[in-house]
Amino acid sequence: MPDSSNRLAQQMAFIIEADKLKNIFRQSYISDASRRENDAEHSWHLALMAITLYEHANTPELDLLKILRMVTIHDIVEIDAGDTYIYDEVHKQDQEEREQRAADRLFGMLPDDQALSFRAIWDEFEEGETPEARFAKAIDRLHPMLLNYLAEGKTWKKHDVAASQVRAINCKIDKGSHDLWTFAQDLIEKAVAEGLLRDA
Amino acid sequence: MPDSSNRLAQQMAFIIEADKLKNIFRQSYISDASRRENDAEHSWHLALMAITLYEHANTPELDLLKILRMVTIHDIVEIDAGDTYIYDEVHKQDQEEREQRAADRLFGMLPDDQALSFRAIWDEFEEGETPEARFAKAIDRLHPMLLNYLAEGKTWKKHDVAASQVRAINCKIDKGSHDLWTFAQDLIEKAVAEGLLRDA
Ligand SMILES: [Ca+2]
Repeated sequence: MPDSSNRLAQQMAFIIEADKLKNIFRQSYISDASRRENDAEHSWHLALMAITLYEHANTPELDLLKILRMVTIHDIVEIDAGDTYIYDEVHKQDQEEREQRAADRLFGMLPDDQALSFRAIWDEFEEGETPEARFAKAIDRLHPMLLNYLAEGKTWKKHDVAASQVRAINCKIDKGSHDLWTFAQDLIEKAVAEGLLRDA
Repeated sequence: MPDSSNRLAQQMAFIIEADKLKNIFRQSYISDASRRENDAEHSWHLALMAITLYEHANTPELDLLKILRMVTIHDIVEIDAGDTYIYDEVHKQDQEEREQRAADRLFGMLPDDQALSFRAIWDEFEEGETPEARFAKAIDRLHPMLLNYLAEGKTWKKHDVAASQVRAINCKIDKGSHDLWTFAQDLIEKAVAEGLLRDA
């Protein structure tokens, strides 16, 4: 017999620790450009995108529940590992090691069976090979591009990012959704035409 | 044949409009009490609670996917209607009318089939009669109590809320989960014992 009150205590400790995700700020600004977005808000917006857009996935009959589990927990490791900017080649080098350690500690707070299942979902997302992981990664890439466009290219300008870099990093959207990659390419073209993104 | 690019444009317009949820601030503070929480973060935290805690629902074999849809969209109406504090009897009077109008406008941005399905999920949550809605409402009530406790009763003190009010408003948690209502009652007792909440 599992001790259910101890089990609930472990679950609550994890839920409380996860509150720290609200203090992990990303490079992206929210759409009105008033402030940077945090990982908790970003994760919520991905859930909304998944629910609204999963019909555009390349693979029909995706497991939407699995995608929602993925996007809800995908950034929790950043509580320990911090947010690594996608164009930051220096910090990307030890990113995997930092995030693996974080996953050990954070998912390890849960009861054993949940520690395993949450970790398996996170690993599947990170590996990006299943249809659900490909779609989750596609929206995870599209989301900051969309915000950046709405915030008039604020982050692109700050880091002097070029359209070719945006295309090179985000072309993987195509693995999850041809429709969304077409949308993203149009967005890049509009951003260049409107002077929000450097054309090179 | 639906025009798929027009369909995607409608979906994206909805996703972009929903970004405003990040600027709807609640009465609750995040757990370190540094600032108030917004609706987008709150909705993410409910998704995490649902995934972690749904085994504690009174009804076994809940539809977790439906619960995640509910919590992801449940507060979107507050983009137009604003956040109504649960102990605010004045603003609660026209809350339903304001939120119905907001639901018409916001879910109405989506393609017709999705406008109907999102609205149906939101109505089901609001009515609170199905097992999924009861559980979603239980965690929606527990969440601010938990944050308030962690933030040393900041909101309770500010609004001079008493333990009896907290019990009266939150006893509905029991309809979704006896386990979580037991947890909540312990939390209220601890809050009173620690001087975070007025005992009356
Ligand atoms: Ca990330």
